Amino acid sequence: MNLPLGFRYSATFAGIRKIVKDDLALIVSDTRATAAAVFTQNRVAAGPVLIARKNVRAARGRMRGILVNAGNANCATKTSEKVAIETSRAAAKMLGAKAEEVLPASTGVIGVELDPRLILDALPQLVGGLSADRFEDAARAILTTDLVMKTAFAEVKGARIAGMTKGSGMIHPRMATTLAFVMTDAVMAPDALRTVLKRACEKTFNRISVDGDTSTNDTLAVLANGASGVRPRLTAFEAALTEVLESLARQIVKDGEGAKKLVTIDVEGATSERAAEKIARCIANSPLVKTAIAGSDPNWGRILSAAGNAGIAFDPRRVDIDFQGVAVCRGGVAAEFSEDELKARLDEPECSVRFIIKGRGRGRARFWTCDFTEEYIKINASYRT
Amino acid sequence: MNLPLGFRYSATFAGIRKIVKDDLALIVSDTRATAAAVFTQNRVAAGPVLIARKNVRAARGRMRGILVNAGNANCATKTSEKVAIETSRAAAKMLGAKAEEVLPASTGVIGVELDPRLILDALPQLVGGLSADRFEDAARAILTTDLVMKTAFAEVKGARIAGMTKGSGMIHPRMATTLAFVMTDAVMAPDALRTVLKRACEKTFNRISVDGDTSTNDTLAVLANGASGVRPRLTAFEAALTEVLESLARQIVKDGEGAKKLVTIDVEGATSERAAEKIARCIANSPLVKTAIAGSDPNWGRILSAAGNAGIAFDPRRVDIDFQGVAVCRGGVAAEFSEDELKARLDEPECSVRFIIKGRGRGRARFWTCDFTEEYIKINASYRT
Repeated sequence: MNLPLGFRYSATFAGIRKIVKDDLALIVSDTRATAAAVFTQNRVAAGPVLIARKNVRAARGRMRGILVNAGNANCATKTSEKVAIETSRAAAKMLGAKAEEVLPASTGVIGVELDPRLILDALPQLVGGLSADRFEDAARAILTTDLVMKTAFAEVKGARIAGMTKGSGMIHPRMATTLAFVMTDAVMAPDALRTVLKRACEKTFNRISVDGDTSTNDTLAVLANGASGVRPRLTAFEAALTEVLESLARQIVKDGEGAKKLVTIDVEGATSERAAEKIARCIANSPLVKTAIAGSDPNWGRILSAAGNAGIAFDPRRVDIDFQGVAVCRGGVAAEFSEDELKARLDEPECSVRFIIKGRGRGRARFWTCDFTEEYIKINASYRT
Repeated sequence: MNLPLGFRYSATFAGIRKIVKDDLALIVSDTRATAAAVFTQNRVAAGPVLIARKNVRAARGRMRGILVNAGNANCATKTSEKVAIETSRAAAKMLGAKAEEVLPASTGVIGVELDPRLILDALPQLVGGLSADRFEDAARAILTTDLVMKTAFAEVKGARIAGMTKGSGMIHPRMATTLAFVMTDAVMAPDALRTVLKRACEKTFNRISVDGDTSTNDTLAVLANGASGVRPRLTAFEAALTEVLESLARQIVKDGEGAKKLVTIDVEGATSERAAEKIARCIANSPLVKTAIAGSDPNWGRILSAAGNAGIAFDPRRVDIDFQGVAVCRGGVAAEFSEDELKARLDEPECSVRFIIKGRGRGRARFWTCDFTEEYIKINASYRT
């Protein structure tokens, strides 16, 4: 892995989680970095989201770092915003940065007061531990119910991009889902970075679903510190960023709570990209589709029915559906296929669904979801987030 | 139970289901009855839905009966509409009614051709078996994954209302969910019946959710044959019809696939009834809320977060949440309550959630959902609808 220049990382256990495992991470750029971020669209936004949004604006898109904790969402508590301000300021001070130059982020249980002392007391050790090669320590510290660490890397004309993310439940395609942090040493202007981030996010993090719920804390932030001196063309940078975000997004779905299969859904032939996306989202969120896939049941009727709930007009008699490349529905009715053979292929860890509306429509969209297993219920019925 | 006058019922096994159990039912009014119906809003509507809609219109809201089969949805097949026309016409002919005076309805697997011969061959026995006291036989014949028969009764000024319904998965609050048939001997004009049905449906069948999916075959039809000679006031009739539909709707949720608990959600203090309904629906459909309730976990943070996804503006700091009458959240933050005590109370078969936005808003809505258990996944991963 090629890490971008000019960044340092740290992680420590601050006592926020119930188990002893790093729960506090710090990402720092040696110099001010161009910053852009997208946040949850949930009306109930956590304190750190409100403060992060304010800070990015106050700092005019030039930030020094990200302070993030797992184990407590710092949301729906009396002191939520206060804690986010106090802790991010303290970190900024220790870094010699302005108060607003650190972006706070939190993930974990909602509605439980987060004691700022835990973080304040851990800060000296956290800052002391900053190192250019502790990227993975930080990536591990932000995980909650995740089973695996999630990172992705790309290069563009000699500049490097490195991303980390967390999340395996409460994953829904509204926007920046869960926490994700991307560092690059490319030279980027704030406006350009914002535009590129929005577009890349739209096609990646906004197109995944595990359970259709959007969290109160979703944050996706990019820091571009220019340390490489490379000023890539915007289209090239956007392609590389999209590659990193797509990889991270897919890793989230693959690690979806209880998920055994990653499902890629392609919708083609809709009247617009937006229409295609809506249909894909309805298929991706249907518990009946997701349970059928869990059972390796090529039940295309559920896919057709779920698509019909998207609020998008289409003629069912012009719909073709493929499962794992096998034609299961042609013109809205059953195609001839070997069910046993297809069932066996559906046992694979990756599963593809193609939903094609024949005609002149050029709208297409790709979406990722996972199957819905008994394990998901087990995790969420017993686990107090 | 007091059945309305002037109706006869029949059921038989036509060989549509894989197991030997009645799968074909006929409901007949001795005279033409005023008819009103609401249907699925899924873009992929089954043949019987398309034909039923046409028939009610062609007959100007005056129908003789309902022909319904379980075991095959007669949807997404080459002959779907043809089969619905052929079989409902044949039934009409045997009843001495006009072709359009019988309403077809189907439920079961999607995408498998339904052989009309099975129904045509069974018709003589079905019509021969018509009897005023076979209401329950018909109510049982329409069931699929249901564990129990679902019926409800009411009286209004001497007129009687009797309803039956089926459904336990693919239940979503868009409109008439699953199949439901209501018979009354009250005297009703077509326009009045339509209006009253829409309003009653809006507050009952449109406010339930099991898994957020809407089927291709949902049909709710009311026949009012006037045999009692009673012409009740519209408000009184609406109240009685609402009572019957609410009872049927609740029975569906209670029998939700894998469900162990019926959950009643009340939202109060929203800016409008529509806003309250949207918030209630988001809470009712959240897998995280539904799994928490399955686990008797008073995780109010998930309720607040789900409400925040409704696209309705509200101030989280003015939100109170009660679980089983116990204050768990006040002003958007945790209230003091005994978690062990509440956990025990959440083990009860009925569970109530109140979500109150303090202020001047007068919008309120009640919604019913069920918990989300491992059993739901088991049923839907293995069962080919």
